[in-house]
Amino acid sequence: MEILSENTCFGGIQGVYSHKSTACKCDMTFGLFLPPQAKTQRVPVLWYLSGLTCTHENAMTKAGAQGWAALHGIALVFPDTSPRGKGVADSDNYTLGQGAGFYVNATQDPWKPHFQMWDYIASELPALLMAEFPLIEDLQAITGHSMGGHGALTLAMNLPDQYKSVSAFAPIANPSTSDWGSEQLSAYLGDNKDNWAAHDSTFLMRDKGHPGHVLIDQGASDPFLNLLQPEKLSEAIAAKRQQGTFRMQAGYDHSYYFVASFMEDHIGFHAQALLGE
Amino acid sequence: MEILSENTCFGGIQGVYSHKSTACKCDMTFGLFLPPQAKTQRVPVLWYLSGLTCTHENAMTKAGAQGWAALHGIALVFPDTSPRGKGVADSDNYTLGQGAGFYVNATQDPWKPHFQMWDYIASELPALLMAEFPLIEDLQAITGHSMGGHGALTLAMNLPDQYKSVSAFAPIANPSTSDWGSEQLSAYLGDNKDNWAAHDSTFLMRDKGHPGHVLIDQGASDPFLNLLQPEKLSEAIAAKRQQGTFRMQAGYDHSYYFVASFMEDHIGFHAQALLGE
Repeated sequence: MEILSENTCFGGIQGVYSHKSTACKCDMTFGLFLPPQAKTQRVPVLWYLSGLTCTHENAMTKAGAQGWAALHGIALVFPDTSPRGKGVADSDNYTLGQGAGFYVNATQDPWKPHFQMWDYIASELPALLMAEFPLIEDLQAITGHSMGGHGALTLAMNLPDQYKSVSAFAPIANPSTSDWGSEQLSAYLGDNKDNWAAHDSTFLMRDKGHPGHVLIDQGASDPFLNLLQPEKLSEAIAAKRQQGTFRMQAGYDHSYYFVASFMEDHIGFHAQALLGE
Repeated sequence: MEILSENTCFGGIQGVYSHKSTACKCDMTFGLFLPPQAKTQRVPVLWYLSGLTCTHENAMTKAGAQGWAALHGIALVFPDTSPRGKGVADSDNYTLGQGAGFYVNATQDPWKPHFQMWDYIASELPALLMAEFPLIEDLQAITGHSMGGHGALTLAMNLPDQYKSVSAFAPIANPSTSDWGSEQLSAYLGDNKDNWAAHDSTFLMRDKGHPGHVLIDQGASDPFLNLLQPEKLSEAIAAKRQQGTFRMQAGYDHSYYFVASFMEDHIGFHAQALLGE
């Protein structure tokens, strides 16, 4: 693991690190914020998965998360959204390939050799983090924005023991039936839609739900509402009797101005699940 | 004035606007955050002046200021750092020309025709803002980072009636004697150093000070300490018996991680001056 940068931030350290990923077979970069509490004790960790076109950097600089994480004593991980670099498959479409891994393990060429983002996020990166930093393995939570909201929800519902709580900002809620999802799941997983269900939050919510409380925020003026389909997930939450809060926020769009506006609530929500606050 | 974008943010509006500047003789872009309180009443305004290489956008996206401004009901203005565009003089040096206006009125060619940032910030832009938005002309305060900290301090000490309070993050404290300043003041104002004194915070502090309380934050691990020279300003504050707080912050560097970490304090400080909170 290589240190790319470390900046003092809200009394803690915002670091950026690079490592050779076994899952993705390339160098992967991630951001990690360690709150000041981590200087003297192990701390819980909140994963933040980013959306289409993002790297590890967007949320790290624009989501305004570190101050609230420092307040509650929670670490934040900002993984990249896909494998990258020479020799890694890509497309001209910003919704497929580099920057658009959709948090799945690709089974189809040309994506299969590197696009193993599920294993990377669920297994490889947490193992590295637990070995290298003072984090508490049993106290993890997950959130994300847009494609990252999809990632957070699908990971949490498939791995309920790994994530104590899950939230999302404007998640791609039903990718199997969206132009943000169907083409990508087909490309990465093949045309058999049976293989897509484990990567569709609406279907997972109908089927499994999550043992914890779920928090979703969605901007009512989001220009991508027809691609995100929040009504599908909202309906599934209610139908499943899932303990959760779905908030439709008047006036907000899909930007980081929306994400930052509700970050305090999301980190407070996860602090309650992780620390009983 | 043209609306370039408006995003809902912390219950208010983060807008970006463009207008033809009389002072700078080119189109100028600025950001303005209106807190939710501005929907029903006029609000005070805090100016944020940015540093070298920045546009209106850096602080708007990375300083984490809007949440605190919304809490206190204060508008935020994010001006650009120089005139820009075709026909506007520039240099290959990032510390001179476009992105590096140093908040002065240039008297020397080739800068003189457009580089009139002092008049732009002190007169033209406030007049436009007061005409177009629900702001309170008598309740203005100013802050800034690095070159923008220099701008904030020099504007406030020269125009004490215009700014109720002033703060700065890692300001260029004594530009007359720094490589971040002497070359630029010479280029913009000519070689007669008598004309530089009105644009040097340390000299202004020794001479005038400010009628309000002054707040300065400086990172102790800032890689540019030898260019910023905080010890000059700190000494001048104490020598002048200026009511003020100078904080040397262990571990912090020059980045927006530093700025964001102390933004709550700075906006709270200005809220006290503007609103008596």
